[in-house]
Amino acid sequence: MKYSIGVDMGGTNTDMGLVTENGNIFQRRNIPTNAYTELEPYVRDMMREVKAMMEEQQAIDGEAVELEGIGIGAPNGNFYTGCVDNAPNLTIKGVLDFGKEIKKYMSVPVVLSNDANAAAYGEYVYGGARGMKHFIMFTLGTGVGSGIVIDGKLVHGSTGGAGELGHNILVPHGRKCSCGREGCLETYTSARGIVQTYCELKGVPVTPDVTSKMIGELAHQGDPIAMKTWETVGDQLGLAMANSVTFSAPEAIFLMGGPTQVGEPLLKPLRESFEKYLLNIYVGSCRIRMSELKANEVAILGAAALIKMKNENGK
Amino acid sequence: MKYSIGVDMGGTNTDMGLVTENGNIFQRRNIPTNAYTELEPYVRDMMREVKAMMEEQQAIDGEAVELEGIGIGAPNGNFYTGCVDNAPNLTIKGVLDFGKEIKKYMSVPVVLSNDANAAAYGEYVYGGARGMKHFIMFTLGTGVGSGIVIDGKLVHGSTGGAGELGHNILVPHGRKCSCGREGCLETYTSARGIVQTYCELKGVPVTPDVTSKMIGELAHQGDPIAMKTWETVGDQLGLAMANSVTFSAPEAIFLMGGPTQVGEPLLKPLRESFEKYLLNIYVGSCRIRMSELKANEVAILGAAALIKMKNENGK
Repeated sequence: MKYSIGVDMGGTNTDMGLVTENGNIFQRRNIPTNAYTELEPYVRDMMREVKAMMEEQQAIDGEAVELEGIGIGAPNGNFYTGCVDNAPNLTIKGVLDFGKEIKKYMSVPVVLSNDANAAAYGEYVYGGARGMKHFIMFTLGTGVGSGIVIDGKLVHGSTGGAGELGHNILVPHGRKCSCGREGCLETYTSARGIVQTYCELKGVPVTPDVTSKMIGELAHQGDPIAMKTWETVGDQLGLAMANSVTFSAPEAIFLMGGPTQVGEPLLKPLRESFEKYLLNIYVGSCRIRMSELKANEVAILGAAALIKMKNENGK
Repeated sequence: MKYSIGVDMGGTNTDMGLVTENGNIFQRRNIPTNAYTELEPYVRDMMREVKAMMEEQQAIDGEAVELEGIGIGAPNGNFYTGCVDNAPNLTIKGVLDFGKEIKKYMSVPVVLSNDANAAAYGEYVYGGARGMKHFIMFTLGTGVGSGIVIDGKLVHGSTGGAGELGHNILVPHGRKCSCGREGCLETYTSARGIVQTYCELKGVPVTPDVTSKMIGELAHQGDPIAMKTWETVGDQLGLAMANSVTFSAPEAIFLMGGPTQVGEPLLKPLRESFEKYLLNIYVGSCRIRMSELKANEVAILGAAALIKMKNENGK
């Protein structure tokens, strides 16, 4: 049977899956990314797990695993070069050429892109964006990422670095961002930004024991400051989403990531804000939707989907 | 010889040109748009002028004019439907189906898009964006328009209404915009927005005798309020342009339109602002450039270029 490998390279862990053509994950493995400081041993161990997954699946299927390719979603992953370019939150530093390294072990197509682009493409191939030609994915997590699909193609731009809407400046001279600038969307609507808003509203310093998950639980218990926090975040994210519509007039904007699991306390003000800020010519043509992929599968599925993109683009 | 017709439909005038394959305008004509309230007589007179241009050129060439098509740049022009959709600043109201109407006179391809999209495509086919695959065009005028090219294709989006960056909300709860919302880029960096900024800085009411052209002349004479006006506008536009880069990572952002002819008083603060607000991963990969097409030719050339797009897309 035909499979793809999806690799979700995070700063802490690297999750891998053997994915069927229909988007089912039949095998899963992981290795600790932050235990490595060099690409060679990291890829060696990654490929050991890939081969183990293939062998296990072969035993179950009773026939050889036909591998279509390896898709990798990684921070600062560049689709054009196939390299991870100096990702600040990885312990493996520098420009990491995965294609070259993997070739030592296996001769299959290797496609790499950043994690948010992969998530968007996963939604397109396996999730709620199937059949759509134009949509945008926002991922909320430690940071805020985005992936943009136009005319059925993921937008990579001239450098491979397109789709960084988390670094759209929402508030000029606003909060300090990890990118060195001020007021990026990410500083308000990432998990960290949400915690900061809550602490500011409460008038207390930011401490590690406050999490966006906790603020979600408090909101469901009716805590007014927590509720006000999600209203603020929803308003800011809705504005950013409405602005993004003026660019590509998408059919939908998808949303995923840890902080979105709070549900209505975020989604209600988000939808209201989106409607309020949406330019009249787009009203009724674009709506906000939650990702239809499971939270613990989307990253692997997205990475595996990148292989489909390579095939479709004939590259 | 082969020619295209480019039609620039403005609220006041409709300019038409017979354009060679290399982007030379050999014949020009115009009719007063605002003298019409119905599509039928408007297209009738437009086609009369088109035929007159063709006959005149035929006499010069000594051979039949081979017409590749008619491209129309119009406010609210929709590429997908070939219609102008309820443009507020036209005296001809409603949904205007140009393709259907033109077919009564001539059987050639008709392509229609909004004016800023046409300008972007003109830059791509005939101007400074030749050979580029990713760029954005900002047009400053009565309003602020934009056209976006990704992977060598004009972005139309799911509705045909993509590329309205003039209606990105720059300042939440800011200046009232003609679209009914508040704080759109257009309210700050259109000719009208520039006049408003100047009058606000001077502490006088906005009157019709103040124009952006006059503010440009004052800046060149060293008038401090005029200079401060352009600095403010440059800073705002630079931020908007830097934000647009996070979407598609273009090679260049082009700029055109009346207010840009002031030159350095606008361009210097604009470039400084763009550099200040540009996300680090894009530094060095994208620069701001002035349109290379003549101000009095760009609209006709852009409209004519739309025919090339139709041919390339195989539609």
